[in-house]
Amino acid sequence: MTADSPSPTLEERLLEGDRRALARLLTEVEAGSARGLAAMKVLYPHTGRAQTIGVTGSPGAGKSTVTNEMAKAYRARGKTVGIVAIDPSSPFTQGAILGDRVRMQELTADSGIFLRSLASRGSLGGLSEGSMDVILVMDAFGKDVILIETVGAGQDEVEIAGTALTTVLVNTPGMGDDIQAMKAGIMEIADVFAVNKADLPGADIVVAQISALLSLSTADGWDPPIVKVTATEAEGIEELVDACDQHHAYLVESGAIAESEANRARRQIVALARRRLLAQLIDHSGGQDRLDELVTAVAERKLDPHSAVDQWIGG
Amino acid sequence: MTADSPSPTLEERLLEGDRRALARLLTEVEAGSARGLAAMKVLYPHTGRAQTIGVTGSPGAGKSTVTNEMAKAYRARGKTVGIVAIDPSSPFTQGAILGDRVRMQELTADSGIFLRSLASRGSLGGLSEGSMDVILVMDAFGKDVILIETVGAGQDEVEIAGTALTTVLVNTPGMGDDIQAMKAGIMEIADVFAVNKADLPGADIVVAQISALLSLSTADGWDPPIVKVTATEAEGIEELVDACDQHHAYLVESGAIAESEANRARRQIVALARRRLLAQLIDHSGGQDRLDELVTAVAERKLDPHSAVDQWIGG
Repeated sequence: MTADSPSPTLEERLLEGDRRALARLLTEVEAGSARGLAAMKVLYPHTGRAQTIGVTGSPGAGKSTVTNEMAKAYRARGKTVGIVAIDPSSPFTQGAILGDRVRMQELTADSGIFLRSLASRGSLGGLSEGSMDVILVMDAFGKDVILIETVGAGQDEVEIAGTALTTVLVNTPGMGDDIQAMKAGIMEIADVFAVNKADLPGADIVVAQISALLSLSTADGWDPPIVKVTATEAEGIEELVDACDQHHAYLVESGAIAESEANRARRQIVALARRRLLAQLIDHSGGQDRLDELVTAVAERKLDPHSAVDQWIGG
Repeated sequence: MTADSPSPTLEERLLEGDRRALARLLTEVEAGSARGLAAMKVLYPHTGRAQTIGVTGSPGAGKSTVTNEMAKAYRARGKTVGIVAIDPSSPFTQGAILGDRVRMQELTADSGIFLRSLASRGSLGGLSEGSMDVILVMDAFGKDVILIETVGAGQDEVEIAGTALTTVLVNTPGMGDDIQAMKAGIMEIADVFAVNKADLPGADIVVAQISALLSLSTADGWDPPIVKVTATEAEGIEELVDACDQHHAYLVESGAIAESEANRARRQIVALARRRLLAQLIDHSGGQDRLDELVTAVAERKLDPHSAVDQWIGG
């Protein structure tokens, strides 16, 4: 850079592939700072090119290992990869965070992979306002494939994985006999089923159970494949990646991708609006003190919760 | 009832112990109808007497069996019991609903037990506005103990179990080696740990893992006990019920119950306000059509999501 040319902005540097600019803007965007919001306006028109894949499923299913192996498989196919890992933070997560650092060292020795962990407050809190923006920023950066992996199974985490164009639901043998109850509520978001730990007894039973449940579905169009994998041995990963690519091709060819994009946009707009409306209400209604008063009145049974909301909103 | 006395209202009948009035008002309240809201204003001052216990944990942990056995144990101690079961409904839950009917027949032959299932839309949707009210109505009816059981592990379901005064987290051996990641985010809401299927190999390892994680916690006051149970054999249930009663006694004696009540009130007020604010915004901003326009503009990259919210709210 010469003295008479203006310094490129962080956004310009990011769009030219500067990883440090990416890291910096991801931090701003995740925090929901004014700088982050300004960046989103510049970067958003550059999004929509990435193939986004959510990896979700029950705790203990091996989602991290599946995600890592998928990342390596996509790299071997010449694609650049972004990983967004949703990481519940709590007084008990020191171990998980440590595990993540080890994992980053392994994966990010390859400059074609960029991993970012997002702190979620687990089932008590949820994700920050900027979480969905993090995926968009990686997309603008030009990653070909973005893998979004949930560590927990909280609603926000499953929801953000569900904003991906393709959602992989990772199952595993030995989850007890209520697989049916377990799957209710998340099965319908799966585009591809992975049965991990396929070397364990019972893997074929899980495949049969998923097939039986899928046969009850009345959805038409895409017929979700079931892929057996043993992620720790990298077995079945090529087939899993093929299944994801086939789903993505189906979305593009059928035109269903427009609907997926609209769903993602709707989720983000509604989530942002909900948060802003509540913040405005607190500001305009007398702040936290006013809310605290109402909470006390309800806790002491002087006021019922619905009347409290009437008074708070002035409805 | 004689001809010259006015008919008692449903609320009066409920407060006198009429199960049909209870069933009727639970339906109104869950639906959030005007009749249900009117009932809440009458019934709310009669709440706050029940000992509420949330039963949550990973899929496959045996929460239903634990809940059923706890209900029987409380009945044997002369307490009346309400059960609120959170049931994810989806195209795939036919089996779960059927299982619930069988279960109701077994339990509700005892008129001291009242079971109500709440439909949740799983991780895609969440619970209806009236879900928290259902617990309050059972409380007003005079149930001594209310068990709130989640079938799934979505955030709303865990959150509603977390509104109970005492939360039991059910664990089980054989959930894989990432118990730590699994527990992050829900461990901190547990007041009592149950290790179910304690006859299986690995139960003592789970107990040791939970102990190790608890030793990292800096919370003081109540020290969560870990109780081994084999719910299918009703083993350990007396100890589990004792642990819940000890926690409840601790809350009352330490005065911490006031804080629990305030937390419950705050969650309900904020949840109700959020929902009402969004409905008002949609009404006042041009309805669903206006939202659809913004969604389309964002999906087509003509507008970024934050600017869309600015335009929607007029911020």
